[in-house]
Amino acid sequence: TFSATPNASQCSIKGLPLVRNISQLPQDNYGIQGLSHITVAGAVLHGMKEVEVWLQTFSPGSRTPIHRHSCEEVFIVLKGSGTLYLASSSDGKYPGNPLEHSIFSNSTFHIAVNDAHQVWNTNEHEDLQVLVIISRPPIKVFIYDDWFMPHIAAKLKFPFLWDEQCLQVQAPPKDEL
Amino acid sequence: TFSATPNASQCSIKGLPLVRNISQLPQDNYGIQGLSHITVAGAVLHGMKEVEVWLQTFSPGSRTPIHRHSCEEVFIVLKGSGTLYLASSSDGKYPGNPLEHSIFSNSTFHIAVNDAHQVWNTNEHEDLQVLVIISRPPIKVFIYDDWFMPHIAAKLKFPFLWDEQCLQVQAPPKDEL
Ligand SMILES: [Zn+2]
Ligand SMILES: [Zn+2]
Repeated sequence: TFSATPNASQCSIKGLPLVRNISQLPQDNYGIQGLSHITVAGAVLHGMKEVEVWLQTFSPGSRTPIHRHSCEEVFIVLKGSGTLYLASSSDGKYPGNPLEHSIFSNSTFHIAVNDAHQVWNTNEHEDLQVLVIISRPPIKVFIYDDWFMPHIAAKLKFPFLWDEQCLQVQAPPKDEL
Repeated sequence: TFSATPNASQCSIKGLPLVRNISQLPQDNYGIQGLSHITVAGAVLHGMKEVEVWLQTFSPGSRTPIHRHSCEEVFIVLKGSGTLYLASSSDGKYPGNPLEHSIFSNSTFHIAVNDAHQVWNTNEHEDLQVLVIISRPPIKVFIYDDWFMPHIAAKLKFPFLWDEQCLQVQAPPKDEL
């Protein structure tokens, strides 16, 4: 039998055209104020196994949580500017005070595996739009309340916000099939 | 001893800023007419292990070779338009006639592992600019002379054009160290 979840069709790869118009893909803030997230090519939505691509827009003042993950991550800034906070000494018990790096339109940077980081639209006049590429999807995120929370206390969020609905829809108990 | 290759400094990750201006990164056509290639984040240049990102511009009429690779590949069309030729039935002895898909600004598509494909700027009025994301870098490319060349006759090109110089510089014989 088919599962009758209201948005199941949004989670199915079937019927998706090979070439997709990014402006027509589903976008949502997934409960993060000031965020617009689009999964451009994803594990859960499009069957990717090794890479995943997101298009994200942060309104002025909005930001990611302080977090780490054991995948590689590349950012490409398409519009706007902001600040990358990065605590790259992973040898301590907690991230500690991060270094601040200015990010700007047409810039790129990548985050090393397990470095705690946060991307913040610190430009009050303009949206910050980034393309984000991660390896080993779907992403498993460890979230810190602040930069002095111990690494071992950071909370795992999996599936992450944009994968929640469809990971559930796509993995029904086997005996339902 | 240090190797005294003229462009060795271009191949070293040392001294590269964390946040890099994409317009200041090295670009070259690597012998492919009409191509401009920039490695935005790469295995050889930037120490990436799981993903690599390129910014490529194809002048009107220029194109990739017909090729396949065993990594995943995602395209995002930033400017212009063109045609994706894709032979997705990998069960035959050769790719065979490909399907033609129109690609356009703000569109995305991905290439399944080992599918033979070619991206062609078939718009004679405008450059085609794409962001390309691959997994498992550096890329190993198998090149076909035409769509009816047997899969087993396709020629391996590794290191690929933009990785050639620096892969050599970075991997000197062990007893030189
Ligand atoms: Zn991250
Ligand atoms: Zn390719």
